[in-house]
Amino acid sequence: MKIWANSGDSHIIEPPTLFDALPEHLRSLMPRSVKDADGAFETIYLDGQEFRRAMPQSAPGEQGGRPPRMTAMPKGTDASEYANRHIQSNDAEQRLQDADNEGVWAEVIFPSLGIWASNIRTPELAKRGARLMNEFALDFQNQSERFVCTAAIPMLDINDSVAEIKRSAADGFLAGFLPVLPPLGRPDWHHEDWDPMWDAFADTGMRIAFHIGTEPLEPTERTGVYFRGRGGAVLNYVETTYGGQKAVTKLIASGVLDQRRELKVLVSEGGATWGPFLADRMTEGYRQHSAGVRPVLNREPAEILFEQVYASFQHDSSAILACSAMGWQNVMWGSDYPHFEGTFGHTQETLHGLFDGVDEAVSHRIRIGAFQELFPSVPLPAFAV
Amino acid sequence: MKIWANSGDSHIIEPPTLFDALPEHLRSLMPRSVKDADGAFETIYLDGQEFRRAMPQSAPGEQGGRPPRMTAMPKGTDASEYANRHIQSNDAEQRLQDADNEGVWAEVIFPSLGIWASNIRTPELAKRGARLMNEFALDFQNQSERFVCTAAIPMLDINDSVAEIKRSAADGFLAGFLPVLPPLGRPDWHHEDWDPMWDAFADTGMRIAFHIGTEPLEPTERTGVYFRGRGGAVLNYVETTYGGQKAVTKLIASGVLDQRRELKVLVSEGGATWGPFLADRMTEGYRQHSAGVRPVLNREPAEILFEQVYASFQHDSSAILACSAMGWQNVMWGSDYPHFEGTFGHTQETLHGLFDGVDEAVSHRIRIGAFQELFPSVPLPAFAV
Repeated sequence: MKIWANSGDSHIIEPPTLFDALPEHLRSLMPRSVKDADGAFETIYLDGQEFRRAMPQSAPGEQGGRPPRMTAMPKGTDASEYANRHIQSNDAEQRLQDADNEGVWAEVIFPSLGIWASNIRTPELAKRGARLMNEFALDFQNQSERFVCTAAIPMLDINDSVAEIKRSAADGFLAGFLPVLPPLGRPDWHHEDWDPMWDAFADTGMRIAFHIGTEPLEPTERTGVYFRGRGGAVLNYVETTYGGQKAVTKLIASGVLDQRRELKVLVSEGGATWGPFLADRMTEGYRQHSAGVRPVLNREPAEILFEQVYASFQHDSSAILACSAMGWQNVMWGSDYPHFEGTFGHTQETLHGLFDGVDEAVSHRIRIGAFQELFPSVPLPAFAV
Repeated sequence: MKIWANSGDSHIIEPPTLFDALPEHLRSLMPRSVKDADGAFETIYLDGQEFRRAMPQSAPGEQGGRPPRMTAMPKGTDASEYANRHIQSNDAEQRLQDADNEGVWAEVIFPSLGIWASNIRTPELAKRGARLMNEFALDFQNQSERFVCTAAIPMLDINDSVAEIKRSAADGFLAGFLPVLPPLGRPDWHHEDWDPMWDAFADTGMRIAFHIGTEPLEPTERTGVYFRGRGGAVLNYVETTYGGQKAVTKLIASGVLDQRRELKVLVSEGGATWGPFLADRMTEGYRQHSAGVRPVLNREPAEILFEQVYASFQHDSSAILACSAMGWQNVMWGSDYPHFEGTFGHTQETLHGLFDGVDEAVSHRIRIGAFQELFPSVPLPAFAV
C-alpha cells in the first residue's frame, strides 16, 4: 500500500542562464561551477572567491562490505542519471510525476545556490541575485499548489532583507530561506541588528526555513571539509547537524521567538531528535544562569522550542520517537529530492520502514500534519493518506 | 521515601599545595588562580599563559521573574557556602555525609584541574602534574569504595600517556579522564597517533571518561565564552554540550571503538538524549558516504554507540526517554557535586521529579545499573534502592 508524505526538505536547481539579465560587472560575480576533468571535484567561483567542492559520488553498487541494514542507493543509479534528475527537477510536470511515483505530496523547496548565499560580500549582488532567484522560484511555485518555494533573502543590508521579505511575501512566498550562520562580517543571528528582519517575517506570516550545511566559508576552505583522515566522511557529515541547532538556540536565547509568538522556524535536513534534547539543554542553561540570564523569557526555552520550531529528517528512526515519546509535535519528514543522498528511488521503502506499525495519529502528524500547520494554505492530498 | 542514585559526574578539588613537591621551574607553571577584588572573575595562570574565568554566581534567591518550573538553587546558598562545600568535598567523611544526605551512592570523580589539562604545553609538566594529581586522587579514592576517581593522563607524549594509564590502572584507577579535544598542536582524537593510548585503555580495562567543557583555549580566550550579547549565557552553556558528541563521533567513525569492543566511553555532564540522535546521524552519514567511507566498520555506528558509549545527565527529563523509548541502555544520572550548578541541596527533589512513575527497571538502570556495568567492582548500595 502506498504511503504519502509531505517533504520539509526538497531542492530546485537554478538554471545556468538565471543571471544573464544582470549587468556584466555583477554577472561575473554570481556563482558558477567548473568541474575537474576527472569529475571528482568542482570549483565554485563566487564574488571574487573560489571554493572547492567534492562532487556527489556515483552509486556504491552492491554495498560490498557494508552492514546489511544500510539502505542501498537505488540500483543502477549513476552520475549521469543524477545529473538528469537535477534537470528534471526544474520541469514541474516531471517533478510531479517523480513525486507521485515516490509518494511525496507537497514540498518545501530550497534554492540550490542558497548554500552559497552566506558567502556573498557585495550588497548589490546579494540584493539583485536574490531577486532573480525569487522570480525564477515564484514562476516554478506557480505551476503547482504542491510547491512551497523558499525565498532567497539578501543579508548584507538589513533594509534589503526587510524589503525582499515583504515583496516575496506579497508575491506569494510562504517561507524564506536563511543559512544557519549569517555572512562573514555580519553579526550573528542573536544580535539586535536582525530584529527588523524577524519583525518582517512575523508581520508577513512567512516561515523561516534554515537548511543545514549553509555556513559561510573562508575562501581557503573546502566546502564541508572539517575533518580529514580516518572517519572523515562520517565526521564531516555529522558536523553539519549542529548548525541548525545553534541557529535555533540563538533565536530562543535572545528572546526573538519569545517576543514574536507567531514566528515559526523550520530546520531542514538536520534530523529532528535534537529538538527535545536541545529544549532540555537550554532549560538547564537558563536554570544554571538564572541570576544573569538576559533577556528574561516569558516562557521556558523548552516551551518556545516545542511550539515554534519544526525540523525535518529523512531516515532517522529516533525522530519518530521524539514526537511520540518525547512529545515534540513538530517533527516533519523530508525527501531531500532531487539530491542523490535523499530518498529518491526508495521513498516508499523508507516511509514504510519508518512508519509501519507507528500509531496512526503520530504517523499522520509527521508525514502530513506538521507541514500542514506550517503551511495551511497548501491543500491536503486529495486521497487517503 | 528516599531514592538513591550513583553519580556519573562528580568532582574533587585539588588542594593548593598539591604541586609543592615539584621543582621551582615546574611549580611556577602549574595552574593557580588569582581572584579579582570584586570576586566576579578569576585569572588562571598556567604554563606561561593567562586565562580569565567568570566566578560561579551566588544564589539567585527567589527566582524573581523565572518561570515557576525552573528548579531553584538551594535556598540560602551563597558564595561562601559554595567555597566551604568545595573544601568539604576533599574530606572523605564529610563528602560521604553529604552524599548520604542527598541520596548519592557511588561517584565518578573528575579532577578539577583537569579542565586545564588540554592547555598544558610542556611535556614534563603534563607528565609530572598528572602523577601528582593521581597520587592525590588515589589517596582519596582509597578512603571509600564508593569513590571512582578518574586518573589524569598526560597528552603531550604518547609514551607518557600509555605509561600513566598502565601505572594508574595498576594502582587501582578504574577510569581515566580525557578532555573532549586534545591539547592544541596535537592531532585530533580520530588520528592514528592516539592508537597506543586506546590500546592501553583497552588492555587495562580502564574506562575513558570525557567531561564536557574541557576544550583547549587560545590564551586570548575567556573560558567558556563563545557568544556575547543577548542570550549569551544560555548560548555559552548549550555550546558545551557538543564537545562530548564530537569526541564520541571521532572514536566511532575512526574505527577506534569498533576495533576494541571492550573499550567503554563515558561522557559526563553533556546530557544523554544526544545518544540515539547521534547514532542515527552517524548511520545516515555512513549510508550517504558508503562508497568512500574509511574505515569500513564491522558494526553500524549506532550499534557501536549503543553498546560502548555511556552518558550522564542531571535534570534533562528527555534523557530517561532516550533509555525507555529509544532503547539506549547507557543513560546515567550525575550530580555534578560539589559544583554550585549541580543538584546539591535538591538531589532528592530532582531524583523524585525525574524518576517517580518511571518503570522500575528503567529507573534502576539509569540510577544504578549502567554505572554498575561500567564499574562492576564497586559495591551496590547496601540497602533497598
